[in-house]
Amino acid sequence: MPTLVLLRHGQSQWNLENRFTGWWDVDVTEKGEAEARAAGQLLVDKGMDLDRVFTSVQKRAIRTANLALEAMDRIWLPMTKDWRLNERHYGGLTGLNKAETVAKVGEEQVKIWRRSFDVPPPPLEADSPYAALQDDRRYAGITVPESESLKDTIARVLPYYEAEIAPALKRGERVLVAAHGNSLRALEKHLSGISDADITGLEIPTGQPIVYELDDNLQKRDRYYLSQR
Amino acid sequence: MPTLVLLRHGQSQWNLENRFTGWWDVDVTEKGEAEARAAGQLLVDKGMDLDRVFTSVQKRAIRTANLALEAMDRIWLPMTKDWRLNERHYGGLTGLNKAETVAKVGEEQVKIWRRSFDVPPPPLEADSPYAALQDDRRYAGITVPESESLKDTIARVLPYYEAEIAPALKRGERVLVAAHGNSLRALEKHLSGISDADITGLEIPTGQPIVYELDDNLQKRDRYYLSQR
Repeated sequence: MPTLVLLRHGQSQWNLENRFTGWWDVDVTEKGEAEARAAGQLLVDKGMDLDRVFTSVQKRAIRTANLALEAMDRIWLPMTKDWRLNERHYGGLTGLNKAETVAKVGEEQVKIWRRSFDVPPPPLEADSPYAALQDDRRYAGITVPESESLKDTIARVLPYYEAEIAPALKRGERVLVAAHGNSLRALEKHLSGISDADITGLEIPTGQPIVYELDDNLQKRDRYYLSQR
Repeated sequence: MPTLVLLRHGQSQWNLENRFTGWWDVDVTEKGEAEARAAGQLLVDKGMDLDRVFTSVQKRAIRTANLALEAMDRIWLPMTKDWRLNERHYGGLTGLNKAETVAKVGEEQVKIWRRSFDVPPPPLEADSPYAALQDDRRYAGITVPESESLKDTIARVLPYYEAEIAPALKRGERVLVAAHGNSLRALEKHLSGISDADITGLEIPTGQPIVYELDDNLQKRDRYYLSQR
């Protein structure tokens, strides 16, 4: 039975500091490392094994995947890293403390940027200390977005899902996607048929495996947090 | 310029205990972890960057690769894991303390098994505590050897090199191969034109990056231990 396990990276340093992260390559904290190992151990405890792993090119997701696999004694599984599973690019919000942003532009504007389906934040400015990510070698050959709405994020995640992840599932593989709040929202929206209006409100906790049991046509049979079974 | 960096895994628990390891999946020690990080830091210090990584499906090599990449802030690089880069399969010697084996069968016989080019050790017996590796899920679909000579090892490493690693080098990529004493001997023999008689005596230290600078036809221009430059 095709099984897809979604895992948001463990707590990152900027989750802890409540800053917009997006494509900035922030590592997980010690707590985040522990969450990743616990997620792997939970999969073992529930008797759930894996065949293949997909992750982003961001270290908080890759390290989460590696630590979970180490806990499962499955570090030898094939792992594909692709920018299309990256977090939503927060543009000019990158690096800002969320509370400071609220104080500066008002809660309503922040809510629009964070929660609207199709309004991207303002672009990352060239003199931002975070503008360097636009020239990061790992993105050579692609056009790094200046900013993304959730809709923009979905528009790169879903074609990747269809091209790379769905074929593995159709072969009957058990697939782990270790990724980010918004790239996982894209998958949840697709697999659970969530509306544009509702998807922005779906919170995905760090380090908690979400299991999708799928039929042969990759339609959802069941979805649950592993910890609740 | 195509560049190939060879890295033998950091010290493993069975390196420390002086036991034949082969395909048994032994982890690196704390010293081995430190060696792996130091290898990555040395690459950074010498200004050497990478584009792609190949490793075996054995955790001591994979973890060495991951730790070196973490030290380089390059954990996002594509990494391919393949059994054809595994250590030589030591058959019935797997798990034996080398000193005990010498005491049991004599130093000359051990030397033949370890050092001859084409004499494999006796097969792993079905009642060996290490026979489980023959049924390990990671080897599903391949015929796990009962035992390998160095010649047998080379016979699987070199076709993999030609099929997967050489094309990356021909694209001008800087490639890391994080692997094992004997799978790396296979590459050294090929790239440096070492004779059957001499290759068994080539010792490859753990955690020390060996750099091959190659021309466009992947002929050796230079070979050196990075630490010596």
